[in-house]
Amino acid sequence: MRKRILPSILRVLMLGLAALSAAQTTPSADEAAIRAADAQWKKAVAGYDLTRTLAAYADDAIMMEPGAPAYVGKQALREQWARIMNDNYFALSWSVAALEASGDLGFTRGRYDVTYSIENRDLFDQVGKYVVVWKKLGNDWKVAIEIYNPDGPPKPHK
Amino acid sequence: MRKRILPSILRVLMLGLAALSAAQTTPSADEAAIRAADAQWKKAVAGYDLTRTLAAYADDAIMMEPGAPAYVGKQALREQWARIMNDNYFALSWSVAALEASGDLGFTRGRYDVTYSIENRDLFDQVGKYVVVWKKLGNDWKVAIEIYNPDGPPKPHK
Repeated sequence: MRKRILPSILRVLMLGLAALSAAQTTPSADEAAIRAADAQWKKAVAGYDLTRTLAAYADDAIMMEPGAPAYVGKQALREQWARIMNDNYFALSWSVAALEASGDLGFTRGRYDVTYSIENRDLFDQVGKYVVVWKKLGNDWKVAIEIYNPDGPPKPHK
Repeated sequence: MRKRILPSILRVLMLGLAALSAAQTTPSADEAAIRAADAQWKKAVAGYDLTRTLAAYADDAIMMEPGAPAYVGKQALREQWARIMNDNYFALSWSVAALEASGDLGFTRGRYDVTYSIENRDLFDQVGKYVVVWKKLGNDWKVAIEIYNPDGPPKPHK
């Protein structure tokens, strides 16, 4: 009887391990999901799409902008993004230099390029760096914290 | 025989689950480890202890300072921290407003208060916000990315 029980136990244990392993999403799948969410977010920003831009964020997300206290929560983010998108010359793009996920946390970091105007007249370009902390909420990865700062002073747009 | 096998299978499966569960460090233990590493780091900075300040960082850590390109890697961090600590009036403190860990990633965010001088003469105070991405390397949590920006312009020190 022992000879029969041992393989059964091993089989069941392996089934249990396989089930657990499947329950934990592999890092690469999460990283791909963050990359896709990031691309959608960037597209929404480029298209001045306020609703889709806000959809990238968790409800309690925090945006840390240089020169101002943090914007906390979706309503504060909505007001700030509306102000930003009120600038007809606003153009923001970014490139992901690193992306990692572990469990239900992830981050992206990289470089951004922004063009903006003062009162829709004088135009400036600025380059900087950023970090975004992502959180897995249900099946979706959302922006929990966004923080950035410039590499140097803004330059007249060219 | 079936009556005997089933409890055995369950027991072994539960042992397997317990072993797996123990293998994953609980979030609170990791969070406590990050909090302790953060406290040590802050103490090292307060004491102008360059070696212990650098010990907080991963070898490939990145420091993102406003107004300059990122400092990448321990040697660049060493040079930058040496410059910072060359200011006799430099005083930096920070308070953790949120701390989370999942798998081998974590983050802290919060507020900082810094006093610094220009050429050890004119003194300024500045308040800002920061995000630190932590990584578990072996048994230790290390700073992988540090980024911050001010809430507003510096003010004359008082």
